[in-house]
Formats: sequence, C-alpha cells, structure tokens
Amino acid sequence: MAEHRVAVVGAAGFGGAVAASIVDRHPSLKLTALTARSDAGKRLRDVYPRHRVDLTMDEFDADRIAEVADAVILGYPHKAAAPVVRELRARGVKVVDLSADFRLSRELYEREYQPHEAPELLGEAVYGLPELGHREAIAGADLVGAPGCYPTASLLGLWPLREIAADAIVDAKSGVSGAGREATATTHFVAADENVTPYKVEGHRHRAELDQELPDGLPVTFTPHLLPIDQGLMASCYVTPKSPLTGNEVRELFHNAYAGQPFVELADAPPGVRDVRETNLCRVYATVEPATGRVLAFAAIDNLWKGAAGQGVQCLNLMLGLPETAGLLP
Amino acid sequence: MAEHRVAVVGAAGFGGAVAASIVDRHPSLKLTALTARSDAGKRLRDVYPRHRVDLTMDEFDADRIAEVADAVILGYPHKAAAPVVRELRARGVKVVDLSADFRLSRELYEREYQPHEAPELLGEAVYGLPELGHREAIAGADLVGAPGCYPTASLLGLWPLREIAADAIVDAKSGVSGAGREATATTHFVAADENVTPYKVEGHRHRAELDQELPDGLPVTFTPHLLPIDQGLMASCYVTPKSPLTGNEVRELFHNAYAGQPFVELADAPPGVRDVRETNLCRVYATVEPATGRVLAFAAIDNLWKGAAGQGVQCLNLMLGLPETAGLLP
Amino acid sequence: MAEHRVAVVGAAGFGGAVAASIVDRHPSLKLTALTARSDAGKRLRDVYPRHRVDLTMDEFDADRIAEVADAVILGYPHKAAAPVVRELRARGVKVVDLSADFRLSRELYEREYQPHEAPELLGEAVYGLPELGHREAIAGADLVGAPGCYPTASLLGLWPLREIAADAIVDAKSGVSGAGREATATTHFVAADENVTPYKVEGHRHRAELDQELPDGLPVTFTPHLLPIDQGLMASCYVTPKSPLTGNEVRELFHNAYAGQPFVELADAPPGVRDVRETNLCRVYATVEPATGRVLAFAAIDNLWKGAAGQGVQCLNLMLGLPETAGLLP
Amino acid sequence: MAEHRVAVVGAAGFGGAVAASIVDRHPSLKLTALTARSDAGKRLRDVYPRHRVDLTMDEFDADRIAEVADAVILGYPHKAAAPVVRELRARGVKVVDLSADFRLSRELYEREYQPHEAPELLGEAVYGLPELGHREAIAGADLVGAPGCYPTASLLGLWPLREIAADAIVDAKSGVSGAGREATATTHFVAADENVTPYKVEGHRHRAELDQELPDGLPVTFTPHLLPIDQGLMASCYVTPKSPLTGNEVRELFHNAYAGQPFVELADAPPGVRDVRETNLCRVYATVEPATGRVLAFAAIDNLWKGAAGQGVQCLNLMLGLPETAGLLP
Repeated sequence: MAEHRVAVVGAAGFGGAVAASIVDRHPSLKLTALTARSDAGKRLRDVYPRHRVDLTMDEFDADRIAEVADAVILGYPHKAAAPVVRELRARGVKVVDLSADFRLSRELYEREYQPHEAPELLGEAVYGLPELGHREAIAGADLVGAPGCYPTASLLGLWPLREIAADAIVDAKSGVSGAGREATATTHFVAADENVTPYKVEGHRHRAELDQELPDGLPVTFTPHLLPIDQGLMASCYVTPKSPLTGNEVRELFHNAYAGQPFVELADAPPGVRDVRETNLCRVYATVEPATGRVLAFAAIDNLWKGAAGQGVQCLNLMLGLPETAGLLP
Repeated sequence: MAEHRVAVVGAAGFGGAVAASIVDRHPSLKLTALTARSDAGKRLRDVYPRHRVDLTMDEFDADRIAEVADAVILGYPHKAAAPVVRELRARGVKVVDLSADFRLSRELYEREYQPHEAPELLGEAVYGLPELGHREAIAGADLVGAPGCYPTASLLGLWPLREIAADAIVDAKSGVSGAGREATATTHFVAADENVTPYKVEGHRHRAELDQELPDGLPVTFTPHLLPIDQGLMASCYVTPKSPLTGNEVRELFHNAYAGQPFVELADAPPGVRDVRETNLCRVYATVEPATGRVLAFAAIDNLWKGAAGQGVQCLNLMLGLPETAGLLP
Repeated sequence: MAEHRVAVVGAAGFGGAVAASIVDRHPSLKLTALTARSDAGKRLRDVYPRHRVDLTMDEFDADRIAEVADAVILGYPHKAAAPVVRELRARGVKVVDLSADFRLSRELYEREYQPHEAPELLGEAVYGLPELGHREAIAGADLVGAPGCYPTASLLGLWPLREIAADAIVDAKSGVSGAGREATATTHFVAADENVTPYKVEGHRHRAELDQELPDGLPVTFTPHLLPIDQGLMASCYVTPKSPLTGNEVRELFHNAYAGQPFVELADAPPGVRDVRETNLCRVYATVEPATGRVLAFAAIDNLWKGAAGQGVQCLNLMLGLPETAGLLP
Repeated sequence: MAEHRVAVVGAAGFGGAVAASIVDRHPSLKLTALTARSDAGKRLRDVYPRHRVDLTMDEFDADRIAEVADAVILGYPHKAAAPVVRELRARGVKVVDLSADFRLSRELYEREYQPHEAPELLGEAVYGLPELGHREAIAGADLVGAPGCYPTASLLGLWPLREIAADAIVDAKSGVSGAGREATATTHFVAADENVTPYKVEGHRHRAELDQELPDGLPVTFTPHLLPIDQGLMASCYVTPKSPLTGNEVRELFHNAYAGQPFVELADAPPGVRDVRETNLCRVYATVEPATGRVLAFAAIDNLWKGAAGQGVQCLNLMLGLPETAGLLP
C-alpha cells in the first residue's frame, strides 16, 4: 500500500509531539517533516526523548511542506493556526487542525475567541468527532477541526442522551498537559500537586462546542477542574431525563449509539482515566442513580490522544481512505 | 484555665492520629491516653513520625479511659464504634465519635448500614456540624456524631442554597486518605496514581447525611471520585434555582449563612484543596453560571481535618465550653 | 514468517500483564494462553483495561500450556516459579522466568533466598542481560532468568566501568510498581505519596546479581529507595576509578561497551525516568565530577519494561531467532 | 515576655512565605511587615491561602522596615539579597538571610556565584547551622546566612562522620519547591511528574558549603536529583571509613554529635521525607553496610522548613535570646 506523506506543523507542543510519534509508528503514513517555532533546529527526540522521533524540527515554510507532505497535522494555538491552514490549503495540502480555529461556526468562534483569521475556509471545515455522525463528512473533507479535549469526552458522554435530556451538567477533570507546555503559575508543579481546582467556572470556551453539537435549547452546565495528573480527562455527566428511564434503557441508548465505534468502549463500572492512558479510546459508563432517577455518564479519555493527537490521526485515516484504526489500535 | 483531659480511642487510623496530634498541641486540652487495636504497644510517633505524639497506644479499657479522661475522640470504624460509645457513656465520659454510628437517625442508619449496635444512645447524639445550626445543641451534648468528610463539604456548599434549590448535584472528589489506612486494591499507589475514578455512583452511604440535613423533598445527586492526592476533598455543587438569581444574590446567601463562622472562608475565586491543607477551614466559592443560570458552589476541605479530626476537636471545644477555635486556628 | 506461540503464566501481576500486552502486539509472536492464580476466570483486560488484552486467564495446567505454547514468559514470585519451570521444561517449553529463581548460581541464590526448588535446572539457565555479553548464550538457551529491575539499571550503569573501578556505590530509586501488585502498608498511596524512603539498606537481595556479574573483589554498595511514581527506575552510580580518567575517556568506555546495543541509549545529559517510560530502553549518562575525579553514571529504565517484561521479550526474541528488537521498538 | 518585631522581606517566594507563616504563629515574635517585589499590594493570604497570614506585602523600604522591625528574615535570591542586607544592617536591623550571599567565605562565594555585592559584611556573618557547632556564634550574631537546603541535610548526615571519613558521596533528592516559585521548563508539572532526574552533576553550587564546613581534604561527591514531590529533601550519604567501624560505633558517633539537639531526631530505620513534612526536624538514620563496611547515613528534612524558613527562625530565636525551639515545636 502506498504510504501517505504527513508533516506535523507545531510539533514541539504536547499535542503535536504525540501526533508526530503516532504518525512515525503508523503503518501507512510516513512522517516527512516537522516544524516548530521556538525549538526549530532540534530533533524532536531531544525535546521529548521518550517519543523517539528522530526528525529535526524546522522553521515553518509552506512551500517546503507542500512539497514533502500530502497532509498536515497542525499543533498551533488558536488564532495562530488559521493563517497557516490558509497557506497549506492554498497549496492543496489536507489539514487536521488541533486548535479551536476550525471547530466552530464563525458566530460561535467569534463569540468565544476573536475575529476569525481565515473565515473563508470555515465552509469546508468539518468537526472531527467521527462518533457524532461526522464520519462521512470527515472522510470527504480536506480540512478538519479536531475537537477540544473537554468537548470530546463531554460529547461522548452526552451524545446518546441528547434526545432524552432535559438538561445536562458536565463536571470535567483534566490532567495538566491539557494546559499546554507553557510554564505558568498554573502549571507549576507546586501549584498543581496535591490539589484539585475548578477554573473558568463562569464560562470556558470549550462549552461552545457542546452548544454546537448538542440539540438547540438543551441547557448545558460545563465546569472544568485541574487535576494533579499528567495525561487524562474525565467528564462526569449528570442529566435530568425528560421522563424517567431505567438503567437498562440508558445502557441501550449507549449501545445503540456506539455499536461498531472502534474507539468507544462501554464499561460495566465507572472508568478511571488510567484505563485509557496513552490510547485513543474513550471508556464510558452510564447508569441511573436510583435515589433521584438522574442519568449519570462518565467518559474517560487521554486528553493528548482521543482528546487531541490520536483523534487527529483517526480523522486523518478517514480523510486518506485508510482504516479508521490504522496506527491507533494494536 | 483548667485543662480538660482527653483520650483518643482508635488512634492508629488516619483520623484518630490527626485527632491525637491536634489534642496534643491544644492549649486547653491534655492528651492523657491513646488506644489502638492492631498497633497497641507502639508509640503513636513510631507509626506516624511526623505527628510527634509520644504517648503509647494501649488496648482499649473503658474503666481506665474513664479514669484518665473527661472526653474521648473515637476513631473506630462504624459498627465497631457504637459499643465503645456505650461503655464510655455509661462511665460518664463525653464522646465525639468520628464514625457514622451517631450521625443519622436510626431509620436512615439502618437503611444504609446495619442494625444499630446502641440505638438507645441515638436520642442524646447530636450531628456535629456547627455551621448548620447545630452549635447550641453540640455545646449542650455529651455525645456528638461528627459528620463524614463528604457530607461536611457537600453540606457547607449546599446549606445557604437549601431554600432556593429545586435540585442539587454534588460531584465530590476526595484524596486517598479518605479511604482509610487499610491496604487494598483501591488504595494501592499504582491504582490511584495518575488516575481519577468515580465510585459507588449508584449510591454512597454518605448521601444519607445530605438527605437528613437538607430539606425534605430536595433531590440530591451525590457522586464521589477518588483523586491521586493524600489529603483534600472538593465538593462541586450544581443547583438549579427555583427561580433565577443573580451572582450577587447568591453571594449574599453565603455571606448571610456564614457570617461569623470561624471555619468557613468565602473566597473570591474557586478554591483548591491545597488552600486548606492541614487546616480546619472550609473554603467556599459560589457563583451563577451566566449561560444557564445554574448556581455553582465549590467547597474545599482537608478530609482529615474539617472532614474528620479537626471538626471533632471543634465540636469538643464547644462541648467543653472552650472557644470554638481553640487549638485549631493560629 | 511463522508465528511463535507464547503463553504468559502469572499474567495478573504487573510484570506478567505487561509481558502479555507486549506479546499480544508483537508481529511474530502469538499470545495463546494466560494463566493467573487469584484472577483465574477473568479476562486480562478486565483487570488491566488499558493493556487491552482480550484473553481470559486460566488456572495453570502444564499439559495444556505445552499444547498451545512453544514458549512461556513466567511472572510468578521467586520460589513459586521454580516448580513451574520444571513442569514446563519437562514438556520442552522454552521459558523466560521473570523471578529471581534462575538468575543466580545456586550458592548465591541460597544465600539470599532459600533452598532452591529446582536446582537441577540451574545448569541450563542463562542470565538474561544481553548487553553484558550474554547475548549468544541467551540465543542458545531454553531457560533464561531475566534480571531484576534494580540489577538491570545498576549493571548497565556499571558494566563499562568494571575494569577501571576501585569501588562502586549504587543509589537506586524505583517506582512503586516494583514492589508488586500486593496491597501492603508500603504500597498504600498515603505511605508512598509525597515521600522518598531508603529501604533494606543493610542488604537487598538484588545485590547478589551485581556481585555475580561484576568482577570478583569489586566492593559494591547498593541502596534502594522508593519513589512516588508508578513506573521508572534510576540507578545513580558512583565509582572511584583505580586511576584518574577524563570525561572523554569515560564516555569512550560507554560508547565502546554499548555500540550496536539497540536498547542502550547514551544521552548527553542526565536522563530522567520519564524519558524511557513504557519503552525497553536504558538511557545512560556518564561523566567525571571535576571536583573529585569520581566517575558518575546514571542509568534510567522503566522497571516493568527493561526491568522485567520488556527485557523478557528481548530475551525471548533471541531464543526464538527473531530480531532482538521485534515488538519492542517502533 | 516582650515580643520582638519581625519583618519578612521577600515574602512572596516559597521560603519567605513559610517564614512569614511561622513568625505569624510564634509566641514571642510579632510579624510587623511583609515586602515583595512582584506581588506588592497583595495580602500574603491571597497568594498563599493556606498560610493564612493577613498582612499585605509592600514594596521594600529600608527606613520603614527599620522603623517597625527589630529583625528581618530575608527571602531574596542570591545577589539581590546582599544590598538589602547592607541597607538593613546600616539601620541596626538584625538579619537572617535565606539566600547564599552570607553563607560562604568571599573566596568560595566568588568561585561559585559572582563578585560579592557587600563583601564588607562577610566578617560579621555567621553560618546558620546551629548543630555544627555554630550555636554560640549565631546567638551573638546580627547577621546570619542560613544554609542551603541541600547542605543542611547533607551536613547533618555527614557531620558526625567527619573524623572517620576517608571520602563521602551525597546522593541528594529534593522536591520541586526547592527550585523556587518561578515557572520554568523544569518546574512544569508535566516535566517533574512521574520522573526523577539528576542535575548539575558536574558541580552544584551548594557543594561549596560542604567544602567549607567539612574538614579540608575530604573529597565530597554531591549529586542533586529532582523528585516529583512538593516539599521534602533526602540526603543519602555514603562514607568509606578510614578504618572499619561497627554499626554500634557509628550510631554512637551520631548520638554523641546530636545529644541535646532539639531538631535532630535519630531514627531506628531509614526515614522518609514524609516523616518530617512541615516540621523543622532533621530525621537521621546511620548504619554500616555489612557487605562492604561502608558507612551509610540518611538525613531527611523539609526543604522549606529545616532547609530554609524553619532554620531561619531557629537562628532568629538564638539571636534574640529566645528558646531555640520557640514557635517551631509543639
């Protein structure tokens, strides 16, 4: 089988580095170039020894990338991503963007972020969560906006309940790698260690993705918390059903929604994030609380895999006509 | 000021050991005896060097305890505690019981636990959460059932909202010391490290305390999670108000409820459990989520202090006519 | 290429489970059976979801294993392993034993452990550290005793220095998974978290492997420490040279010793255990301390991979005539 | 007893904040002022809620400090500290400096750091490790340079052995708070978590303090490692004795050296850093390794207490004629 040539642009961040690592081991992809802004000139393995990717990171040059790569996984922050996507798309390169720039409608994006840097591309962008009915659109797309880590787990927890939900509350908990590689007061070991902290509780931008993907009019509370772990994200979802359901009815909703989904694993007890560490899986448990009839769903992912790079490769597999699980499942 | 003589029965567990340590440093209490079941014969400081309590733990003997102590803090597990309380009360010793045995009405207790071992004492037992209107009753009591760690944080988060709440969801997160000193598959470092896990989501016994203390008919969802930290507990509370409130109205409810409460600290941003580590404080932040109007309250405690031993000493101070904060605030 | 059929006996322990996971993904091995003592009847993925191995663990039955497997990786504790090895060898099954039972001469073994349960097999057993000159013997062996985690890192740090060393001190630091899956006071999260503890400082059994593999008469101090991490082991080695060496001379010793060794990586700065997490690599840095002329070498491994299961598969690859790195490097 | 008025200059760093907290609870000291560079204008409890110190941090003003304080604990970085000490000493204020500026002879200081900013004050400065025979000098001093965290533990481990040691190796392990409050690639949670890393192995400045305090000609190897813990520091010391000693002889050396020292605790098993967390104690275990005759000593401290702020208050107690343990032991 012919190999597809892939570059990772912005490979020095946590998500980009994992993407490079997955592509480098992928049976049908060939990693042909890496770029980075501050770490240009270094080999990726000098920055992340355990990923063992030998390529050197260069400064970004759209012409050179277009020459060596059929597709790009882009690991830039939001706002910085859009102009690069424009340059790459102008040269015919397929792009999976891990930033927020191509996840949202222009309206939602500009409400939560800032004026969009490349609004003309939003029309061709597809939201990269295959399990939410976007698989076919992703397979036909040249530009995919991979979902945020929080929305990935939250949406996978809520999706099967969307018809029966009167409201929804997501108490989400993420490891520190979700805050990125920048050294800040928040990511300092001494701040995060032996701690758990809710943050941005009056409104986190990731909620816009929930609003976009879930039915209009469903009120969704979303509260992120920072945990003293490296990788891992748990979405604990609380749903008041429009009318009472049994546990079996809830489980049936999940089985129906996720039958045949290779990366959603229905567990028979609440999952821990350790269960999915360094995998592209989302492990889910759903039940009904007897005392209240509330529907509970717990969705665990690795925020750098299913919440970013792994999902990016899953989308890329679809865009390139490869098996969805190639390079992602043993 | 005359010192009150205090014994800690069951001092080898996490809660009992912290209680012994607080009493040992307390300006108006004298630690006169320690007992333990499996560690009898050892000095407490041999088991917990950092607590630096020199007393040796003996086998329990009610007569001997009654001879040397006016009051006891009891650190036994539920069911084992009640018979010991009976022996101590029969000898006129005041007791703060850290177990579940005297927290609940007989009906609730027997629904959640087992037949009560000393039901005749339930009439005199007072629920040991002073901030919930029990201060005067505690001050007059000879037997106090100190609240569980989860209920303490959950109730302090929900109490000011009890009149305006149409429902309540508590997503609670606890450090591993809350699971006790027993070495189990759950408390193994490799199971808890780099993990977060919901557990007993269909029903945790601690919810009975919420049912008891909150208004009848308020449906409360309660879901505990295990965190990779030693000490610390966060209750994230989500309340749908009966009618819309502003953030200021919510903050006013909290200020009114907790004015003059020495151990409740109203923060102006969401607290982390690190903020209250090894203190008897509950740090709370309450707000309204603009997108949904949902009322959010976050209550952080140290599960071994305000969630157990510190609260026990707070109650004991009241029972003995001492300042409520004696030995607990600098 | 014909696949070799492999069983993992004792798959429910940490090392056995990783071995099963590696074999299950190995391009030239087929995982045909798993056994466990206490977890028989469960699928491995029910106990370790993230390893995603679907096979069910059975009770051990030597005849059945011999029927379905050409080779076994054995994850039993020492003493329990030897009788199982005898049963398997009697049926012609090749064995890589992860316990201590076949690492040492009978004399050293009985000095450190207990009377040997299958001394007649010691003659055919080979010490499974290919990098120490045992590669050829391993390739020709039917029974390999895989080294302990501490000796693996310690020996890889000291081996290039063995001729020039007047003495050697190894300050070794291990993650908690090295203590095994048993829940004990030592492996309790609250004991290990926020802690570092030296232990068995008057003599740890693993030192016997250093004595055996290093030159006679070289005095080696070996001191293990327990760290609050899951996986990872660092051997910090301090060597007084017989006569002064330069840093370049030391680096040359390491380059010569490890040229062409696929799993030893010479770093140009001290490694962290995170650099080798979930890999079969040993990352080493050696230098001379200018102030004293002391030779320092730091060797980092993942204790469950290069310190146990990964090294076991590395040996198995050699025993089966496969590329040494098959299934272990991308 | 008259209270002494104390200011903490540089209170926003980890060491300064703990110093402020200890002074604030001290029975004979009154905390009268706090200063900070970047956090001026904030209350200390806004930056470190759990220390619960209400004072506001101001910009530094020597005149104002001299007006309100008899003594200062100074938490600035090295080089920045010396000019402030000069200003304070010119106004007659006693100073305990937590930086490196007054720990070393000018020669050693300028070899390891840079030209000294206030060399004229070195003559009056005393090294603040009471247990090393400096108690009387500290009691008579107006300026004390408190030892570094690494030297404190290392010297307390080696001091009783100084006469019998032919050489010494210190493998030291520190929590991340030792690296200070600055957010860097090293202090990022994701870099430190699940890791252990040796660093500055060719020469760390803290070794100069060992050279200064230990006998001339004793070759000392010193190697720091970074651990994934918040607070805590372990010095594992390996000493080849000039002539063989028994374990009892070693223990006698330690008992003689530390009899009556209130902050050195001789343990009968290797200590963990958790044993001394948030105390001013150094817990030590010394023994002889039977296999080699090597003398081993393990010294555990809390790097922010006995390794910085606690030791600073211990020195201040001596300088002010207070009991050495005031405010530091229950």
